[in-house]
Amino acid sequence: MRLAVIGGDGIGPEVVAEGLRVLRAVYPKVETTDYELGAQRWHRTGETLPDSVLAELRGHDAILLGAVGDPGVPSGVLERGLLLRLRFELDHHVNLRPVRLYPGVTTPLAGDPTIDMIVVREGTEGPYAGAGGTLRRGTPHEVATEESLNTRFGVERVVRDAFARASRRPRAHLTLVHKTNVLTKAGDLWARTVADVGAEFPGVTVDYQHVDAASMFFVTNPGRFDVVVTDNMFGDILTDIGAAITGGIGLAASGNLDPSGANPSMFEPVHGSAPDIAGQGLADPTATVASVAMLLDHLGHTGEAARVEAAVAASLAARAASDGGRRSTREIGDDLAARAAG
Amino acid sequence: MRLAVIGGDGIGPEVVAEGLRVLRAVYPKVETTDYELGAQRWHRTGETLPDSVLAELRGHDAILLGAVGDPGVPSGVLERGLLLRLRFELDHHVNLRPVRLYPGVTTPLAGDPTIDMIVVREGTEGPYAGAGGTLRRGTPHEVATEESLNTRFGVERVVRDAFARASRRPRAHLTLVHKTNVLTKAGDLWARTVADVGAEFPGVTVDYQHVDAASMFFVTNPGRFDVVVTDNMFGDILTDIGAAITGGIGLAASGNLDPSGANPSMFEPVHGSAPDIAGQGLADPTATVASVAMLLDHLGHTGEAARVEAAVAASLAARAASDGGRRSTREIGDDLAARAAG
Ligand SMILES: CC(C)[C@H](C(=O)O)[C@@H](O)C(=O)O
Ligand SMILES: CC(C)[C@H](C(=O)O)[C@@H](O)C(=O)O
Repeated sequence: MRLAVIGGDGIGPEVVAEGLRVLRAVYPKVETTDYELGAQRWHRTGETLPDSVLAELRGHDAILLGAVGDPGVPSGVLERGLLLRLRFELDHHVNLRPVRLYPGVTTPLAGDPTIDMIVVREGTEGPYAGAGGTLRRGTPHEVATEESLNTRFGVERVVRDAFARASRRPRAHLTLVHKTNVLTKAGDLWARTVADVGAEFPGVTVDYQHVDAASMFFVTNPGRFDVVVTDNMFGDILTDIGAAITGGIGLAASGNLDPSGANPSMFEPVHGSAPDIAGQGLADPTATVASVAMLLDHLGHTGEAARVEAAVAASLAARAASDGGRRSTREIGDDLAARAAG
Repeated sequence: MRLAVIGGDGIGPEVVAEGLRVLRAVYPKVETTDYELGAQRWHRTGETLPDSVLAELRGHDAILLGAVGDPGVPSGVLERGLLLRLRFELDHHVNLRPVRLYPGVTTPLAGDPTIDMIVVREGTEGPYAGAGGTLRRGTPHEVATEESLNTRFGVERVVRDAFARASRRPRAHLTLVHKTNVLTKAGDLWARTVADVGAEFPGVTVDYQHVDAASMFFVTNPGRFDVVVTDNMFGDILTDIGAAITGGIGLAASGNLDPSGANPSMFEPVHGSAPDIAGQGLADPTATVASVAMLLDHLGHTGEAARVEAAVAASLAARAASDGGRRSTREIGDDLAARAAG
């Protein structure tokens, strides 16, 4: 496995180091190349993602990213210039985010809910297209637009991916989330595409929810969801609610996939670079390790993926049962690696 | 007070009847005109909002709406043709939604949080503009766009309204929610406008959150919010999360305001027409009554508004303390009217 590693800033390199240890514990044949990208590089050189680096990344089987950013970088620079650019250039049209409450993990929701869904978020179009403009900036007559661009091609491929995932899950249920009653053009395209592709998956039951209602049900009744498919912006919001109800963003894993295999997919914890706790061994690498499980699964190493996933679940349960003393990044990584190798 | 009443469909007329009883209990000088608008009228005549009705509505001091819709109306018809048309035609640029957890009300959140905020949602532009189009519909080459239109004029007036509200609240804190790192054009306009208008309100503290993070904090730490100002789509989502954490959409009140007074403002519960329980006296009119309190407040009857608001709080607390037997729409209305009059 040829793996590109972008540790990034803050706690990024720390959690990625543990992710790699766990990866090697189950799958030793990993060759890594490190890339310095993120806030540090930007401060040093003004670059976010040089074309030459992008070209090199393409030569890998997958990318593991920690986290990028620090308070000194203007908002939007690394988001549009690095993170979103990677998603768009590498055609990461499936943004996969499991929303799963592991036994032992504290949720802000009362009454011990069962939460086990996966959100399939479109990653390469919609409101994230970067289309839009400004007229008369800074005057009382300023106009600013943002355009959501949606194509049958783009919607169909992510919808098909979501159906395929749903068909492999016991409940085999898919929920489309959109706002068809207000965003009538894009909503119509999404709804028709789900109906069309659904005909290929007769074993999958389908329902639809408006994004406002779905956001509510994530809180009041998350158990009703199995696979959720949605657009780029709604998926951004829903997956953060999903993280909130399953123990926080510190545990949330994600994959940015090009399921065609034409480009390397990228795996990363959802959390940020947390500069305030960087370098102190305080970061929890669990989300990165869960992202490594997704990476293994994506590359077809399903047995190894299952072992890492089981290690994450067992480690979290053990931590819940223990005295609760805080463990270091390294100690958690050790524990996860030992369990996965086990 | 000249009040236009749109009972609507399903439970709409039932809850509005109780709302009017409570209104008259504190403010008897109300002259009402009923308008048949909603699913029934559409089925009968194909009309959503005839121009002549719109013209008549303009002649009133305010509008009270129950709920519209039934499963026989295609999605979008009443939303765009009636509800959103009213907001746009009557320049309801401030969509006001209190998010308040009343004592005794069950929240899905663990740990008894304190929740007392108000969301000021822009109501007349953004992604709700209805701008966008479709090319090659139904073909593999279909393209569908949705355009978010934002103006300095539109953003500034809602931001100023939110600052003014924040300045009258004890915490005097305002949170702008947007997605400035991705929606860079509209985000820039919103952020600059908040900075500019904020200079007029030195007593109000300001912070900013991305919509994904804010959605998470609504669940994990709702106590950090006081006044939230945000765009039309983000506000739609956030206020439903807000409803979810404060006892459900059945209790959520809202106002669609033109604070200039040039047009009548409209008040409505956030819930829908619930055709499954219509006509059985099962609907809870509390959200409508809370919307009546907002109506009174908007028209300057602040003492009466406070009495209705206090009646809502006391009634909910009393219901929580009672044996929990279900009370009818009418019984709850009686209780609220008696407390408000008392
Ligand atoms: C950092 C930002 C551009 C990104 C997004 O909006 O997609 C993040 O919120 C995420 O969810 O991965
Ligand atoms: C019915 C719909 C058009 C409306 C909206 O999206 O604004 C509703 O969800 C609301 O929040 O009032």
